[in-house]
Amino acid sequence: MEKIKVGIVGYGNLGRGVETAVLDSPDLALAGIFTRRPGEVRANGPVYPVETLDEGADAEVLVLCGSSADDLRWQSPRYAGAYHIVDSFDLHGDIPAHFAAVDAAARRGRRLAVVSAGWDPGLFSLARVIADAVLPGAGIHTLWGPGVSQGHSAALRRLPGVLDARQVTVPAADAAERLLAGEVLTPQQAHRRVCYVVPEADTDRAELRRRICAMPRYFAGWETEVRFVTAAELPGGLPHGGRVMALGEDGARGSLELALPSNPAFTGRVLAACARAAARLGRAGEVGARTVPDVPAALLSPLSPEEQRAKWL
Amino acid sequence: MEKIKVGIVGYGNLGRGVETAVLDSPDLALAGIFTRRPGEVRANGPVYPVETLDEGADAEVLVLCGSSADDLRWQSPRYAGAYHIVDSFDLHGDIPAHFAAVDAAARRGRRLAVVSAGWDPGLFSLARVIADAVLPGAGIHTLWGPGVSQGHSAALRRLPGVLDARQVTVPAADAAERLLAGEVLTPQQAHRRVCYVVPEADTDRAELRRRICAMPRYFAGWETEVRFVTAAELPGGLPHGGRVMALGEDGARGSLELALPSNPAFTGRVLAACARAAARLGRAGEVGARTVPDVPAALLSPLSPEEQRAKWL
Repeated sequence: MEKIKVGIVGYGNLGRGVETAVLDSPDLALAGIFTRRPGEVRANGPVYPVETLDEGADAEVLVLCGSSADDLRWQSPRYAGAYHIVDSFDLHGDIPAHFAAVDAAARRGRRLAVVSAGWDPGLFSLARVIADAVLPGAGIHTLWGPGVSQGHSAALRRLPGVLDARQVTVPAADAAERLLAGEVLTPQQAHRRVCYVVPEADTDRAELRRRICAMPRYFAGWETEVRFVTAAELPGGLPHGGRVMALGEDGARGSLELALPSNPAFTGRVLAACARAAARLGRAGEVGARTVPDVPAALLSPLSPEEQRAKWL
Repeated sequence: MEKIKVGIVGYGNLGRGVETAVLDSPDLALAGIFTRRPGEVRANGPVYPVETLDEGADAEVLVLCGSSADDLRWQSPRYAGAYHIVDSFDLHGDIPAHFAAVDAAARRGRRLAVVSAGWDPGLFSLARVIADAVLPGAGIHTLWGPGVSQGHSAALRRLPGVLDARQVTVPAADAAERLLAGEVLTPQQAHRRVCYVVPEADTDRAELRRRICAMPRYFAGWETEVRFVTAAELPGGLPHGGRVMALGEDGARGSLELALPSNPAFTGRVLAACARAAARLGRAGEVGARTVPDVPAALLSPLSPEEQRAKWL
């Protein structure tokens, strides 16, 4: 079987995670990194200006590694007409509209797209769909963390008086137990948000703390703790994780838990596996958009169906 | 959409579990129970002699609820040529040969078959395939229990001097921790087998205990505890469960855990969901055998893809 040529669009943490996953996969080949700043990128494969994609690059699948709000919203429909694509669009409420836009473009171009891949949305979506299918009437709950919320960290860094910041999301100590006992908790009741903030020297810390806790959509309404720290004390790395729990009417319980030392490394591996699935579906003549629950899991695996049956059934 | 008419073949604990799941699903209709002993069965739908199936019954999908060794080995290939089928064939080592036999029959008859469905094999197979795809090089381990092993219980009941028995499989107290620390454990090291045995009055208990512990394939080589009890003290119900754990090379951990008050009730719901998927694939013109990882999870759900995206992505 011919190797699947994977192009990576955007070369931040996630792009580097996908790159590592592609280079680790014998059936995938790195077609190149496509970026707005080719002069600044030192990658483990060829680097091209992103405009190359409009001229027709030698890539079978593109993995789009930009941000949902700023990049994927327009990139995914734009490139889905010319390449098979995979993205990790994660603005949950906007997924139906994003799916529709990508689906239309992919069908026009006779290409296959896997959108909203990763672990949530992605593997956790799969777990929720299955839990709902096999435990009808179940309470299905998701907890996130402990882990670094990159969007919230960036929001903190944009505040005046902030030199650097990390936001760590932590499930409330008793949240899993209370959810499994049948209680209903809002995300705000089930999580705490801890902000590690390096302030500028002359910043009014009390005022900054008040301002953070009042940020609408980000921290207002959440149990928020602000810890002022030095740069050296900032939590390192980008760990994350979470848990999907289902509690059936008859007391049956299911739980899927992930604990990830590096969110972008793991998400990169999921996206690379989805690139494999997208290419296989595309080679089989399928077109349009899919989400992770629409894709047979067997297609994510580098193993043949026979090998999977012998090894993992 | 026309309801999916599901026939249930065999009416033991599992057959009754599938019946309940079908009756609870608005998109499924109970075509009937097909049994060798129609005179003895009181079901919540029509009951037919199993021979009716050879004449052509009014069922779109058959869910085969017999034992793997005695029934499914011949029933699944036999009926897969005339109906879409779902089975729970669970003799792990024999799955490739069983798959091949059913696949050939289903292709000849232009039908779709989902074999080896349930939770293990089935949902746990899916978890192992995905873990291996997204955590290359991971150690992937399965623990079973605490739960009643029905095959082992039946083996105990066949011994002379035994009036009744249940075998409860329990993961060793430290097994999960040791596996997640990277240790390699055999199934025998990771589990204990507790046998609750009601002996006949004049049985030599010491001799019976020795005999149980020496039973090849069942208990020899396993940490086995034999507890002699009265009938009233036998553990009730058929609870079961287990856990698939994956430990990636970079320390990423994933875990899927099920705790089921009734193994046949839960397995029945999984098989009913697979019947839905089999009918949908069959209506779309697909033929041949599939296992759970080959089936898009979205097809297990009674919800449309749009509803799934809005609710569970």
